[in-house]
Amino acid sequence: MRKHPSVVVFDVNETLSDLSPMADRFEQVGTPPALAKLWFASLLRDGFALTAAGASRPFAEVGEGVLRTMLPSEQLDRSLDDAVEHVMSGFSTLPVHADVPDGLRALQDAGLRLVTLTNGSTAVSEQLFLRAGLDGVFELLLSVEDAGPWKPHPTSYAYAADRCGVPAGEMLLVAVHPWDIDGAARAGLSTAWISRDGGDYPLHFRAPTHTISSLSELARQLAS
Amino acid sequence: MRKHPSVVVFDVNETLSDLSPMADRFEQVGTPPALAKLWFASLLRDGFALTAAGASRPFAEVGEGVLRTMLPSEQLDRSLDDAVEHVMSGFSTLPVHADVPDGLRALQDAGLRLVTLTNGSTAVSEQLFLRAGLDGVFELLLSVEDAGPWKPHPTSYAYAADRCGVPAGEMLLVAVHPWDIDGAARAGLSTAWISRDGGDYPLHFRAPTHTISSLSELARQLAS
Repeated sequence: MRKHPSVVVFDVNETLSDLSPMADRFEQVGTPPALAKLWFASLLRDGFALTAAGASRPFAEVGEGVLRTMLPSEQLDRSLDDAVEHVMSGFSTLPVHADVPDGLRALQDAGLRLVTLTNGSTAVSEQLFLRAGLDGVFELLLSVEDAGPWKPHPTSYAYAADRCGVPAGEMLLVAVHPWDIDGAARAGLSTAWISRDGGDYPLHFRAPTHTISSLSELARQLAS
Repeated sequence: MRKHPSVVVFDVNETLSDLSPMADRFEQVGTPPALAKLWFASLLRDGFALTAAGASRPFAEVGEGVLRTMLPSEQLDRSLDDAVEHVMSGFSTLPVHADVPDGLRALQDAGLRLVTLTNGSTAVSEQLFLRAGLDGVFELLLSVEDAGPWKPHPTSYAYAADRCGVPAGEMLLVAVHPWDIDGAARAGLSTAWISRDGGDYPLHFRAPTHTISSLSELARQLAS
């Protein structure tokens, strides 16, 4: 019999925030909009490489560092510094996905404690929820910057469980990224994978406990 | 005073092999050729995520797993299985970069021991060097599949040093990927970063000992 979670811990970037406007930022400085996906995958690749090597750098520093290696080969309409600034500042203007406000309230109404755990900075999480009118919904906004290694290192999830004062097995991690689901599962959490576009889950990672197309669907699945 | 290396250890994929024909494979199944770069960055992202989480899966399995999540949203000209097979088999037909044969011979003539260390399989390395007429140039073809974790985890480099019977400080790692340079540097190796297109090295990683535009240039730098 599966134990019900008492704490739901959310990934932030792309799970709660909608990253699709980042493609516009790339287009606005003169590159193909598809470069946004390559940039974000490369940012995570480099951040995880540092984690695997036992090191850690801030998310924004890695994001900017990757941009500075990618942009010089593009036909930019402005200086490299200005293009980097324009793309990076896009992170501070993102909206939340359409299903997030109602989904969070349904989970809150079900009596669950809600927290976040991001590889980015707490300040970016705070600004996102303020813009979306969701400040006060979360009990804690956590960042791996205070844990040491980035997710999906086991220490990052153990840090969140420790801050919440519950065993890892009482926590459920919600993420759009399969690598986060896999890491959380290995650390003993239950998991919910959001697939808003209906794609397939990769076989090289541990499978999620729940697969959902929106946060409201998670509230329904947990209630049943 | 810097100690001269006795063993040069080469990364294989993209460092010795030329991955650019992989873009043709993507185009041949009906996707934009630029998808090849996103696929390779995502493959490494997922492989490093597993490494950071304390796990490991074979390179080809992760590569195929990522493909199966990326290709269904494309306008393929054949079945998903056939498209995956066509792209993945491209790995077994790659050439080496133009500077590799002369560069390797110059390093060999300088009395250096030459080995490889790949996140892929030893079989793919063997086939690559057979096709290029470079079999017999390397003393050992090593894979992280026998080490445990993928590069850039420190254990992978320690495994190579152990197999070569030298301290890590006597080894020099050659790679086109900054994450490999960074991990090797943290593990105590000296490093040479090949930048064939003259790009910039990212500031979030430890800097290479040598920056070279070809393997022949490395032989010249080590001799001076």
